[in-house]
Amino acid sequence: MSGINEIKGISNPDGINPKVLHRVKNLRNKPIDTTEIASKILQGDVVALSQGITLLESNQPKHAELASEIMQQTFAGTNTTSIRIGITGVPGVGKSTFIEAFGTYLTELGLRIAVLAIDPSSSISKGSILGDKTRMEELASNSRAFIRPSASGNSLGGVAKKTREAVLLCEAAKFDVVMIETVGVGQSETAVHGMVDFFLLLKLAGAGDELQGIKRGIMEMADAIVVNKADGTNVKNARIAKADFMRALHLFPPKASGWTVPVLLSSATEKSGIAEIWEQIENFKTTTTQNGYWEQNRKEQQKQWMLEFIEDQLKSYFFLHSKVQELWKKLEKEVVKGSTSPYQAAKKLLEVYHQKS
Amino acid sequence: MSGINEIKGISNPDGINPKVLHRVKNLRNKPIDTTEIASKILQGDVVALSQGITLLESNQPKHAELASEIMQQTFAGTNTTSIRIGITGVPGVGKSTFIEAFGTYLTELGLRIAVLAIDPSSSISKGSILGDKTRMEELASNSRAFIRPSASGNSLGGVAKKTREAVLLCEAAKFDVVMIETVGVGQSETAVHGMVDFFLLLKLAGAGDELQGIKRGIMEMADAIVVNKADGTNVKNARIAKADFMRALHLFPPKASGWTVPVLLSSATEKSGIAEIWEQIENFKTTTTQNGYWEQNRKEQQKQWMLEFIEDQLKSYFFLHSKVQELWKKLEKEVVKGSTSPYQAAKKLLEVYHQKS
Repeated sequence: MSGINEIKGISNPDGINPKVLHRVKNLRNKPIDTTEIASKILQGDVVALSQGITLLESNQPKHAELASEIMQQTFAGTNTTSIRIGITGVPGVGKSTFIEAFGTYLTELGLRIAVLAIDPSSSISKGSILGDKTRMEELASNSRAFIRPSASGNSLGGVAKKTREAVLLCEAAKFDVVMIETVGVGQSETAVHGMVDFFLLLKLAGAGDELQGIKRGIMEMADAIVVNKADGTNVKNARIAKADFMRALHLFPPKASGWTVPVLLSSATEKSGIAEIWEQIENFKTTTTQNGYWEQNRKEQQKQWMLEFIEDQLKSYFFLHSKVQELWKKLEKEVVKGSTSPYQAAKKLLEVYHQKS
Repeated sequence: MSGINEIKGISNPDGINPKVLHRVKNLRNKPIDTTEIASKILQGDVVALSQGITLLESNQPKHAELASEIMQQTFAGTNTTSIRIGITGVPGVGKSTFIEAFGTYLTELGLRIAVLAIDPSSSISKGSILGDKTRMEELASNSRAFIRPSASGNSLGGVAKKTREAVLLCEAAKFDVVMIETVGVGQSETAVHGMVDFFLLLKLAGAGDELQGIKRGIMEMADAIVVNKADGTNVKNARIAKADFMRALHLFPPKASGWTVPVLLSSATEKSGIAEIWEQIENFKTTTTQNGYWEQNRKEQQKQWMLEFIEDQLKSYFFLHSKVQELWKKLEKEVVKGSTSPYQAAKKLLEVYHQKS
């Protein structure tokens, strides 16, 4: 509740994303009034929202404190009627074009939409996959839309936390729809699935190997499958792919939500299929609100976030412990070689960790 | 290395499985010489093996110490050329009959086989699903076979640890094949998948809903799918099911092992298909030994066990902490209600946990 703070001494900001750094540098030596930022966010101010998310994403402890203050001051004012949509698909499936078309359609309905991206792999791929805000030019200049490139970080747990808090900030800024984009090739789609109400899988029509390149199990998480780029000479293949997916979905047991997963065709360039997708998402909300799944799912997610964060922190404390780190490499080698059992090794590490230092 | 210990004072053995208790009671007041047990296990003595596993499964700290001594003394003598096979399928699919036929076939080839079961749900179902040793009468009386009913426990992590150590003891007793049976309806099949070389999914031919009742994602873990009870009037349906599964498997990306998952037909009553299954498992071992996956997978599993055990222990310490427990219920309610954010709640709990008491 200190209200006014200063950001200083970030000349050597190890681990800060260059984009974030740029924004933080703009704030340098400028007093940061978290109460003001929070109150502006609650009024829907996107500049304040952007600042808030920048603080969330910073790895500086000072910024984390400021972000925490903002979270606390906005938490009660969050828009609880928002819809959180996860969107995934392999690179090349046309996610950006789809989100641009879909997002523009929603703004035409009068809705305010936020687009976030989660991409823990960006530390390896240098953030090139999702970091390019200019991909969605039309949407980026739309006053009802807020687009934010990927949070990055060292652990998926850390990125997930930042993204979840960014979702809450967007909802505090009264956005109606929050989309979270992810590349469906790592573990991040499971994380995204755990933070949204509706999970959309974008697919391409192809010859045979429909799921090639997509992580195992992801099809089972989808609440809708959209066969994208169903235009021109591709329409016939897209229809075949649709039939294939529907057959495959029949092999899975019913979902806990009671929802039957639809397979839809879409063309972002021809802007076809977009309205149907939104209709299905609204149907999903109606159905699952009536059967209680919607609220139940959100409650479970809240509890899950708390648990995950605790587990993430407990592991951090452990693995950052200097004596654990010292012993770790030696024991891991022994375990792999087979000269120490995994349990003996674990026990030794836990003993070292719990020793009073 | 104390060598001789006594088991005493188990008149009130909270949480001990009645079957285990029975065996432990037989040992009561009898000095336990872990060196002797270990050396007998290494000679392939199944009575000693049984005693070792009983100590492993006991929840008494004294027994855990004895078990740990036995593990240490047998670890270096383990048969590292064994094959670990996970077998799963819904209740009614005919797992016991299959294992009896398959196991008997293997013993006829001169192999020594051990059958373990993992069933963390047994604390709810009172162990009735897998606890019945008498199901496999023929195999149970076979001198080359060792059958052990389910380990039970409060957490899947705990049960998994016991089962893994039981696998190691079986290998110390020079068993050639260790099968781990599980019911494919909970989380245990993921745990079993993480402790075996080859994962076999048993299925029944049915009308349409082939995967009904099986956990989502389990098909993707299988190294072979066996359509069981492919006999009599069921043969035609089994062939249709086989074609369906093969089509579904085509939708999945190639496995990291480079192995193409076969779908096989089997009848335990007519003893058909059994030899083919073993042939496939041997092919799998040859293929993955050549491409390096076999060894890589085992190494990864060893590291994974160490990590999982550490995480399990870290969580145990946290959640059993009295002050955490005090606060937990209150904060969980607030999080579900939405009056506290998951992160604020987690932070408070972590603060309480790390306070010096």
